[in-house]
Amino acid sequence: MRIVYVNGEFVPEADAKISVFDRGFLFADAVYEGVAVIAGKLVDFKAHMDRLARSCGELDIPLNFDYEQLLDLNRQIVARNEMDEGFIYLQMTRGSADRDFAFDNTKMQQSLVIFTQSKPLLQNPKVDIGITVVSVDDLRWGRCDIKTVQLLYPSLAKMEAVKQGADDAWFVKDGMVMEGTSNNAFIVTKDDVIVTRQLSNEILPGITRSALLKYTNETGLRLEERGFTLEEAYEAKEAFITSSSLFVMPVTHINKKPIGDGKSGDISKRLRKLYIEESLKTVI
Amino acid sequence: MRIVYVNGEFVPEADAKISVFDRGFLFADAVYEGVAVIAGKLVDFKAHMDRLARSCGELDIPLNFDYEQLLDLNRQIVARNEMDEGFIYLQMTRGSADRDFAFDNTKMQQSLVIFTQSKPLLQNPKVDIGITVVSVDDLRWGRCDIKTVQLLYPSLAKMEAVKQGADDAWFVKDGMVMEGTSNNAFIVTKDDVIVTRQLSNEILPGITRSALLKYTNETGLRLEERGFTLEEAYEAKEAFITSSSLFVMPVTHINKKPIGDGKSGDISKRLRKLYIEESLKTVI
Repeated sequence: MRIVYVNGEFVPEADAKISVFDRGFLFADAVYEGVAVIAGKLVDFKAHMDRLARSCGELDIPLNFDYEQLLDLNRQIVARNEMDEGFIYLQMTRGSADRDFAFDNTKMQQSLVIFTQSKPLLQNPKVDIGITVVSVDDLRWGRCDIKTVQLLYPSLAKMEAVKQGADDAWFVKDGMVMEGTSNNAFIVTKDDVIVTRQLSNEILPGITRSALLKYTNETGLRLEERGFTLEEAYEAKEAFITSSSLFVMPVTHINKKPIGDGKSGDISKRLRKLYIEESLKTVI
Repeated sequence: MRIVYVNGEFVPEADAKISVFDRGFLFADAVYEGVAVIAGKLVDFKAHMDRLARSCGELDIPLNFDYEQLLDLNRQIVARNEMDEGFIYLQMTRGSADRDFAFDNTKMQQSLVIFTQSKPLLQNPKVDIGITVVSVDDLRWGRCDIKTVQLLYPSLAKMEAVKQGADDAWFVKDGMVMEGTSNNAFIVTKDDVIVTRQLSNEILPGITRSALLKYTNETGLRLEERGFTLEEAYEAKEAFITSSSLFVMPVTHINKKPIGDGKSGDISKRLRKLYIEESLKTVI
């Protein structure tokens, strides 16, 4: 049984509970981060905590933990669960109060929940097969750059993908590909240009996306941060997604159309290798 | 201390907790209803339960309670809290499972939470003063007709109103007034026509809205369900909102501009009286 951190205590998962008056439960008034763990160490941890601080700032949620405290808690949750490889989920809410759309931060104590999910990340059998995606209309709210728990629609989109026999969904708005349900979307053009949508309020500033762009930039591969359509993606040489737990994952089909030769792409796999090599240098 | 219903048990509010793995907490994968209580009886209860069933249906959340069970639980929560007048909040989630965007309804037991908030509804001192509203951009998701707990943005909009010295906010999209943060928006034109936006995926099908339209229709007052702009609202004779706990509440100012004479409107107050008289006939 996992050990879960809830508001100052490490408890067995069956006892990991929060108040029904928590605003994370009543108003989706909460933000989260997901951190990969490899060989018991945290990947890109500083970037995740920086994004957490930004999410809190955008929503006026006071962040009552400093970097060192968060690092300690994340290390403790790994140690207490003897996790070698997997994913840490961290959720911070504004706190508990009697239900009211108006809130008073000075009268609440924020909630912090951290739990682990052990799973293989480096040797993901999906890498050589690649994943398939379908497109769905992007009906999400206007601030997808903030990592809130308002994930009902991404969850329904994932289920729509499953229903269509695919692995995941890409959100499309005004004809443009935004991102995946919990990952950023990339294509590689026939000219070997790596393309991913520019940051805005419409997509999440992915930590893996950002790191990959940095590492790629140093390899001499050409990069473009710009919008692309589904039609351009259909004509691409390769496609892939990035996320904190999938790293770089090749996409072989979009809406059942094969991308390139319909196989897990070589550039995608090369970028995955690059990301893993580089990010392993900074695990803590 | 209140008694709260959580998954089969009535417990003191301090013990009212749900699992951190509840999808209502992790994914905002939950719907809710709010029911007014007058003299210990439930107002418009059947309509609320019909809407709950519709919300669940739209999200593929199985509704494992029939009408009689829900009626019994709502009556019990009123009795156990000796509530005479106030509000019942009921939230239903898809259930608990290890965190995954994909879900399997057959492997989860849905969560049901019910709690009360005692407060005066009939003798609301705000009625004679009226409330003031400000407009905010509507950044919510595309299915506001489903009563989900994705309420972070309405909550932030409410705080923006408070910051501007107002009571509430009206969402405006493409120049048109949609609705309030947790209520439907109405104006009364200089020709005494009552106008409220037509139903669509963009607004909540308010129970009080619907009942008021029905009762108003029987009085001979003219009604129009159509979009209206902020500019039309500024020129209106009166404005008001409807909600399950506020019933009909006059609006005196929008963005600091007085509506009509800037006082709580006579037609609004007449409609409030009408709604209360009629709805009291069907309390159970």
